Amino acid sequence: MIPHLTTALTGPLLAIERHFLAHQPAIEQWFRSAFSGVLPPFYASADLRNAGFKLAPVDLNLFPGGFNNLAEPFTPLAVQALQIAIERVCPNARRFLLIPENHTRNPYYLANVWHLQRLLRLAGVEVRVGSLLPEITQKTECATPAGPILLEPLLRRGDRIVLPDYEPCAILLNNDLAAGIPPLLTPPLAQRVLPPLVAGWHRRRKSHHARCYAEVAHSFAEAISIDPWYLIPAHRKVTDIDFAAKQGLEAIADAAAELFAEIRREYAQRAIDHPPYLVVKADAGTYGMAVMVLKDPGEILSLSRRDRNKMARGKEGISVTQVLLQEGVPTFERVAGAAAEPVVYMIDHYVVGGFYRVHTQRGPDDNLNAPGMHFTPLQFARPLTTPDFTAAPDAEPNRFYAYGVVARLALLAASRELSELTVSS
Amino acid sequence: MIPHLTTALTGPLLAIERHFLAHQPAIEQWFRSAFSGVLPPFYASADLRNAGFKLAPVDLNLFPGGFNNLAEPFTPLAVQALQIAIERVCPNARRFLLIPENHTRNPYYLANVWHLQRLLRLAGVEVRVGSLLPEITQKTECATPAGPILLEPLLRRGDRIVLPDYEPCAILLNNDLAAGIPPLLTPPLAQRVLPPLVAGWHRRRKSHHARCYAEVAHSFAEAISIDPWYLIPAHRKVTDIDFAAKQGLEAIADAAAELFAEIRREYAQRAIDHPPYLVVKADAGTYGMAVMVLKDPGEILSLSRRDRNKMARGKEGISVTQVLLQEGVPTFERVAGAAAEPVVYMIDHYVVGGFYRVHTQRGPDDNLNAPGMHFTPLQFARPLTTPDFTAAPDAEPNRFYAYGVVARLALLAASRELSELTVSS
Repeated sequence: MIPHLTTALTGPLLAIERHFLAHQPAIEQWFRSAFSGVLPPFYASADLRNAGFKLAPVDLNLFPGGFNNLAEPFTPLAVQALQIAIERVCPNARRFLLIPENHTRNPYYLANVWHLQRLLRLAGVEVRVGSLLPEITQKTECATPAGPILLEPLLRRGDRIVLPDYEPCAILLNNDLAAGIPPLLTPPLAQRVLPPLVAGWHRRRKSHHARCYAEVAHSFAEAISIDPWYLIPAHRKVTDIDFAAKQGLEAIADAAAELFAEIRREYAQRAIDHPPYLVVKADAGTYGMAVMVLKDPGEILSLSRRDRNKMARGKEGISVTQVLLQEGVPTFERVAGAAAEPVVYMIDHYVVGGFYRVHTQRGPDDNLNAPGMHFTPLQFARPLTTPDFTAAPDAEPNRFYAYGVVARLALLAASRELSELTVSS
Repeated sequence: MIPHLTTALTGPLLAIERHFLAHQPAIEQWFRSAFSGVLPPFYASADLRNAGFKLAPVDLNLFPGGFNNLAEPFTPLAVQALQIAIERVCPNARRFLLIPENHTRNPYYLANVWHLQRLLRLAGVEVRVGSLLPEITQKTECATPAGPILLEPLLRRGDRIVLPDYEPCAILLNNDLAAGIPPLLTPPLAQRVLPPLVAGWHRRRKSHHARCYAEVAHSFAEAISIDPWYLIPAHRKVTDIDFAAKQGLEAIADAAAELFAEIRREYAQRAIDHPPYLVVKADAGTYGMAVMVLKDPGEILSLSRRDRNKMARGKEGISVTQVLLQEGVPTFERVAGAAAEPVVYMIDHYVVGGFYRVHTQRGPDDNLNAPGMHFTPLQFARPLTTPDFTAAPDAEPNRFYAYGVVARLALLAASRELSELTVSS
């Protein structure tokens, strides 16, 4: 099911995978202890990049939208993890309300909603789907490649979100709230909202996640005696940007120059001959919008008006005023010659599956998650939790195990992030 | 992978499965609530009987010995459940010591040890195997059909069980302690023992489990409005037996007559035309020993000396002084004409897999778990947690879901049993 994957620079990565494999009990004990007393996100997906010389998450999504891309053998694992998650946060809940994104014209996204509804149903709760779209004024059946879903209009009754004939115990958001909390969901709400409203992109910042991730990955690397550089993309945050008015672009160029210098120094120390690059992302960005690649710090000063306009607004037209500069981690995984990046799915603090985003049109340094990009999902055919201690460190189950490890580091960072956001809200 | 299974009397069973399917969210919520605040056994297996007109567990094993019979696709599910179990009872444990049965000449049992060791290793702990056999005085490699295992001699150092070069944090028993707690394991022990020593057959009684099961199944049946009779085998306990001296046999005959009358009455009410039968089991019995079938209460009075001798002693030569009389639940499941009974495996409170015991030599009323019986395991090819709401109630995923439900009822009963044993110890 999975074609042969090739990794061009296998030296250090082999070393990472070999180290993970040899320290697996220590790694698992570290996670047991690190997650103990921590409230993990209800669910999440991590986009990873495997450069051969670095293996790192580059994004962590708290409203994962690709459950339709998980292979059927992962279903029981996802169901069991959902049962754990439900027991943890709302053991008495019987009726869930799922609030999806408003992408009703994206059949793949709607298939994700179908799969999510099925998984929750199998985990033992009733689930109905409430839409925030004003045009959904009555029950509306939508066809999806997976099967039909029924969108229903949401109602607010005092401090409760309901459907006309359905009183949900808990609300599951699959909507990233990029444009802010819709009036209908304004706190206080009597029902548990999962993940909490502060997880929305109106509050989250990628730079906050990157800081939490670096902290978590440093502790982890120390605990298992590995060079943290292998796991952490360097980053800078730049504020007070106005792309349209060309404001703050010098500050981006300065930060980029600093970051390029840092990456060149680290590459030189490790004899890595890949040209460094950066990814500039809207700090509250999502949906693959307002993302660009810099091969040189000066490029940011000579952007065309069209490129600046692309960076100026994110999903739902939200202005970009703050950016994250992230060390580019090229993907050296190839599926039949096309660039591929792994996406790992987690529920509670368990890794439940994943797939590759495979792009035939894009290069290894490009952003592989952008609107209209029609990547091909290639389902992982194996679990990420069953390393083969008798096989080579880069054998598929062992590489997948390594992916599960770095994805959980990002998840732990997100737990910390959510806890800080909740305290400050 | 799974041949077609036929069930002769499908009327009431179809009703049970249909009811379970229609009430799945209520059932799962009931289990969430029932297991909340309860410490489930670390692991367990339930032997079920599916009579068409009754679906019930007939045994619950707290030292399950058939992990070698689970299909490979169940591995990730078992690993995830083991992680949950470890987090619950010994989150800081890193090194486990597995103490198996002394059946070193049973290659299938040793393969079970190999699989158990692998699953624990995948869940992220080190595991070594310590043998109670006096002849294991040094590291001894044993071949098994799954792969080699290394048996090592156990040592006692103060209040700790160790190997010469290994200090385990937790002890996992896969030995049912039928002959009592070995001197080496005498409390107090500084390490966590899983399951607790009171779970051994030197303390457990089948009649205690049967009482707990009846209580649990009654509450469950009330909660989801189903006739509890469908789920509960009637039983009686008889004490002060000496099979060799023919003492107490009249008491067994009297209790049996009562039980036959009860079963006939219930059968008549439900128009079931199967001849009733009873299974007599040593109350502290295990390993399929000291078990017999009664087709008539009088049979117990006219047992041959050979049959009485068989009933007089259980595993490890322990005398049988107390018996459980259990309503016989005939198995109407057939695999290629042979009688088959489902065995369901659980870790913590999650159903992780199962298989059928298939016997070509035995009839539907017979005990299918006896020494030397060489049943054929037929691995379940599907998980037990993914009912198909669009399929018929007796479709395989739905029948398997029903098996998972009754197995969890038995597990809940065992949790109660262990909690009562712990309090009274």
